[in-house]
Amino acid sequence: MMPEAIARLDAADLSEGRDGAAMMELAEELYPICRSITGDGVRRTLAILRRYIPLEIEEVPSGTAVLDWTVPPEWNIREAYIARLDGARVVDFALHNLHIVQYSHPIDAVVPLDELRRHLHTLPDHPEWIPYRTSYYKETWGFCLTHRQLESLTDSAYRVVIDASLSQGHLTYGQCLLRGESERTVLLSCHVCHPSLANDNLSGIAVATMLARELQDARLLHSVLFLFIPGTIGSITWLARNEEMVGRIDHGLVLSCLGDSGGMSYKRSRRGNAAVDRIVAHVLQHDGTPHRITPFVPYGYDERQYCSPGFDLPVGCLMRTPNGQYAEYHSSADNLSLLRPASLVHSLNVLRRIAAVIEGEATYRSLNPKGEPQLGRRGLYPALGGRSAADEQMAMLWVMNLADGRHTLLEMAERSGLPFARIRAAADALSGAGLLEPVS
Amino acid sequence: MMPEAIARLDAADLSEGRDGAAMMELAEELYPICRSITGDGVRRTLAILRRYIPLEIEEVPSGTAVLDWTVPPEWNIREAYIARLDGARVVDFALHNLHIVQYSHPIDAVVPLDELRRHLHTLPDHPEWIPYRTSYYKETWGFCLTHRQLESLTDSAYRVVIDASLSQGHLTYGQCLLRGESERTVLLSCHVCHPSLANDNLSGIAVATMLARELQDARLLHSVLFLFIPGTIGSITWLARNEEMVGRIDHGLVLSCLGDSGGMSYKRSRRGNAAVDRIVAHVLQHDGTPHRITPFVPYGYDERQYCSPGFDLPVGCLMRTPNGQYAEYHSSADNLSLLRPASLVHSLNVLRRIAAVIEGEATYRSLNPKGEPQLGRRGLYPALGGRSAADEQMAMLWVMNLADGRHTLLEMAERSGLPFARIRAAADALSGAGLLEPVS
Amino acid sequence: MMPEAIARLDAADLSEGRDGAAMMELAEELYPICRSITGDGVRRTLAILRRYIPLEIEEVPSGTAVLDWTVPPEWNIREAYIARLDGARVVDFALHNLHIVQYSHPIDAVVPLDELRRHLHTLPDHPEWIPYRTSYYKETWGFCLTHRQLESLTDSAYRVVIDASLSQGHLTYGQCLLRGESERTVLLSCHVCHPSLANDNLSGIAVATMLARELQDARLLHSVLFLFIPGTIGSITWLARNEEMVGRIDHGLVLSCLGDSGGMSYKRSRRGNAAVDRIVAHVLQHDGTPHRITPFVPYGYDERQYCSPGFDLPVGCLMRTPNGQYAEYHSSADNLSLLRPASLVHSLNVLRRIAAVIEGEATYRSLNPKGEPQLGRRGLYPALGGRSAADEQMAMLWVMNLADGRHTLLEMAERSGLPFARIRAAADALSGAGLLEPVS
Repeated sequence: MMPEAIARLDAADLSEGRDGAAMMELAEELYPICRSITGDGVRRTLAILRRYIPLEIEEVPSGTAVLDWTVPPEWNIREAYIARLDGARVVDFALHNLHIVQYSHPIDAVVPLDELRRHLHTLPDHPEWIPYRTSYYKETWGFCLTHRQLESLTDSAYRVVIDASLSQGHLTYGQCLLRGESERTVLLSCHVCHPSLANDNLSGIAVATMLARELQDARLLHSVLFLFIPGTIGSITWLARNEEMVGRIDHGLVLSCLGDSGGMSYKRSRRGNAAVDRIVAHVLQHDGTPHRITPFVPYGYDERQYCSPGFDLPVGCLMRTPNGQYAEYHSSADNLSLLRPASLVHSLNVLRRIAAVIEGEATYRSLNPKGEPQLGRRGLYPALGGRSAADEQMAMLWVMNLADGRHTLLEMAERSGLPFARIRAAADALSGAGLLEPVS
Repeated sequence: MMPEAIARLDAADLSEGRDGAAMMELAEELYPICRSITGDGVRRTLAILRRYIPLEIEEVPSGTAVLDWTVPPEWNIREAYIARLDGARVVDFALHNLHIVQYSHPIDAVVPLDELRRHLHTLPDHPEWIPYRTSYYKETWGFCLTHRQLESLTDSAYRVVIDASLSQGHLTYGQCLLRGESERTVLLSCHVCHPSLANDNLSGIAVATMLARELQDARLLHSVLFLFIPGTIGSITWLARNEEMVGRIDHGLVLSCLGDSGGMSYKRSRRGNAAVDRIVAHVLQHDGTPHRITPFVPYGYDERQYCSPGFDLPVGCLMRTPNGQYAEYHSSADNLSLLRPASLVHSLNVLRRIAAVIEGEATYRSLNPKGEPQLGRRGLYPALGGRSAADEQMAMLWVMNLADGRHTLLEMAERSGLPFARIRAAADALSGAGLLEPVS
Repeated sequence: MMPEAIARLDAADLSEGRDGAAMMELAEELYPICRSITGDGVRRTLAILRRYIPLEIEEVPSGTAVLDWTVPPEWNIREAYIARLDGARVVDFALHNLHIVQYSHPIDAVVPLDELRRHLHTLPDHPEWIPYRTSYYKETWGFCLTHRQLESLTDSAYRVVIDASLSQGHLTYGQCLLRGESERTVLLSCHVCHPSLANDNLSGIAVATMLARELQDARLLHSVLFLFIPGTIGSITWLARNEEMVGRIDHGLVLSCLGDSGGMSYKRSRRGNAAVDRIVAHVLQHDGTPHRITPFVPYGYDERQYCSPGFDLPVGCLMRTPNGQYAEYHSSADNLSLLRPASLVHSLNVLRRIAAVIEGEATYRSLNPKGEPQLGRRGLYPALGGRSAADEQMAMLWVMNLADGRHTLLEMAERSGLPFARIRAAADALSGAGLLEPVS
């Protein structure tokens, strides 16, 4: 990215109000759609995203072998309910997407209560919430409901109707590749398989879409690849079909849970100290808000696949409150009211700064390595005093001191304690004065 | 060690009551014997151990040059006392082995009290305890007694009788080599030169004997060498005579002070981060009891010799309360009442787990390195829920993630925070499903 | 340095009273001189130091190109004052050297108060202190005065007289090279460009001079180079003219602020873990007084130049309270009353111990690497008991254990926690007994 573009990204915070409203609007439009790992819900979702960004939509036939897995049948659902024998519906998919266990097989039968109970899922600790359950690879059917609803089921038998299809079809995903000067690529990946879940799904989609929309106009050094995929099977499918692109990925982030009120958290890549790990840590450290950085564990989102040993990509996971660590996770309470526009904007801004470091990272060699150069006669001393001028001067001294061809700008930022943007600005000024040359 | 044997060692805790009684019984039988660095006390001790384990007993002649040292004359003692001139004995070796300074020369003389005092040793801070003193390499004689006894000596002269022999003989030690599939060897060493001292001597002997008895029936990968030797001169003698075995030692522990009520402590090898150091640290960390791990210092037990720079063996020292850090150390108060059966059993169990890690350590390469394998269709997902199942699943994910041929199972255990046994079990299950192959 | 010389340095603390008086006397003689980066003040200063030590005085012509810089014109000042129009002087350089902004251009004019104010510098927070200001490279003139003085200026215009010369001349510096057995060199550098500032200037000069006077009689292994130079331009000039010596510098310290009542502080070299960094840290750790060790930053004294990437010399900065961190810094309050003889002596003693480690550092190989040597028959066991004897014995055990040709004595001291002097004494005793040989 060109210096001006980096500076622009870095200053993008100013657009907070507009960005927040745009991301909320997108989330609201996507929320009612019943997504799953296959099916029309994903197609409708990607079609909406395509209004914002140049998205290629891929369709992979059911039964396709992908690494150790097979693309499953496509699942679509039209109607599902539990009704009293008098016809009154007591649980109805029409009222909430989460009422159906994902990938439930079709059924239309009268079922005794005892047997029905074995197919019902509730959250006794949160009796007003509906849980989210899936059964992609084990043949079954089931409903999710509030514990209150469960307690009200007292008839001896109920009619159960699930009008769903599980059939040869496709797995659908979207990819948006912004080509930069180089083929070296930054991967940003989010999952699009959760129905009516807001923080765990829509927040990542909204932030990624907004960033892609913004970057498509920038002159980029790196290529940036945005993936909108069903979790697990989607990343496995993409990896299986794109091995030639895998080797170009220099940095990557899985994006999820970016809209809640918690602080930022970052889960490192398997490598633990990849450039992306150090970059995110640096940006969060200078962000001034509380945050957590945790080591890699082979559990979570699609970083599990990207970081499998045969790929071992430098991909971490950027979140606010992580999966499983907030009460509303995987329940009907993870709804639009959990999203805060300010949180979405803050997450976007952190991503912008991460992008600015990735794009701005470089290595220089001093053309005046012996002794300090006389900055004064080159007009490089800050004109004004104060804290900012002192930092500006220190940044120049650090860059000149460490520009030995072996320290990157990020390493200078880490060692000096100054934010990357200031180090980059100093390097630009010193380059302009002929005191530095880039090292390829 | 085969997987079943490792699992057996790991579950051996169940036999607590029987093991504790057996170790106490052995300690009680050994306690009355007057051991020294040479002489019949060591021979009688080794003869008793031979009833438990296949022990080779070596005799090395006095005067033999061993590294920088020389095997000393053999010392045996029959009788020793201080008597009033009327014949009444006021200090009598027949009543306690510690009354005589080890390697005292023979004497039969009437000695004025003033002169006698220079040959007497007491513990003024513990007036009822007899200290333990030796003078192996400086020609002298002396008695150890309680401070109360010293205060009661008021006659102007006493008769002193020491009926001991210092003569051309042998240094005696025992070794028990359990041959495994490989010549690569685990060394377990304890000293057998202390007379009537329980924690500092007998506890290590009892725990080592019990482990050797147990392992002689196991099918071992490593060979295991148990040494029962006099301190310092014994390890120096063994090292001098077995240089060809030294190069085969991959792991080693000196065992002492394993029966007191304190928590476990481990003193690292000179290398500081040898496999044995990491293994013991891992086992203690997961043991759930308080423990201390301290760096190597060139003072203590026979690790001083094993870790001398010309050998630099990966040998640490496993103890409960270390030498010199409990009040009763090197006194008559380090007697059988200081030993707790539960502590002996706990020490033995820790050693069993250390052995299980040494035997179970291995490196694997994933046969499904790209993306996660589909565990579900292989029946590898835990059937039951709960904490243990979660750990079982995490262990499988960690092993698949790190099985790149560069991480050992111990490294996986360290990184995951899971106990080695669980990682090893996961590796066995995944190997059984054809997902892993061992790396030699 | 020979062992006796090292021991002597280590015991030099005893001369405290004499040394303190001598350093105060030197500071008092130097205080009234108006030094700058060039001019007669530096010449007079160096002439005084030459009475103590063998100092070569170098004169470098104005206009000489030195690295990225040019030696400036020589500045000398005879008279300067601000007077009321009736002739009464209200600010007079004759009363305090700090009243004039260094490198002020000559002027003799009546100046309106409004314009005059733009040339006046005060410290409003310390209204009784005169600040210290320079303008070496920007053409201007100015006065420094107390804020009280400024407030009393109420006339509409004043006469301003500065009788100074800025003309082709020389930059003057002094170097004192004590030749040791080797050309490998220890650099000790202090600045001599501050007029009437005591802690920030004279303390370093006094301590360095005293150490040089002491070392000139010692038989040294290393050569020791003392530089007395104007800050920044002086070190740049020296580096430009002595590139062949630069490659011989193995250790270096910039000395400043060594007389105030604060604890010692050490700023590491750019390398961060150079030998000098570890040596100073070791000495301060065992000094038993509070101290701070801080990372390198490319701001401060002449370490900025020595540590520029083209030289990257292992040069740290030894201070008590660092530049800018005490209120009196760069003001008339940094006067002789800020210096404490005990602090000067303590600083000198710390330097002596650093020198003793630099000179005493060595690597040995054990001639008895297998097992411990029998120290007793060589008479190497301490005769007396107690803490010191225990340390003496532990030092011998550590040296024998780590004398594998790969650990230096400093590394042994660091690992054992014992002071270097004790390790060195043990190595000398063991060498004397034929147990060690030096490794070149």
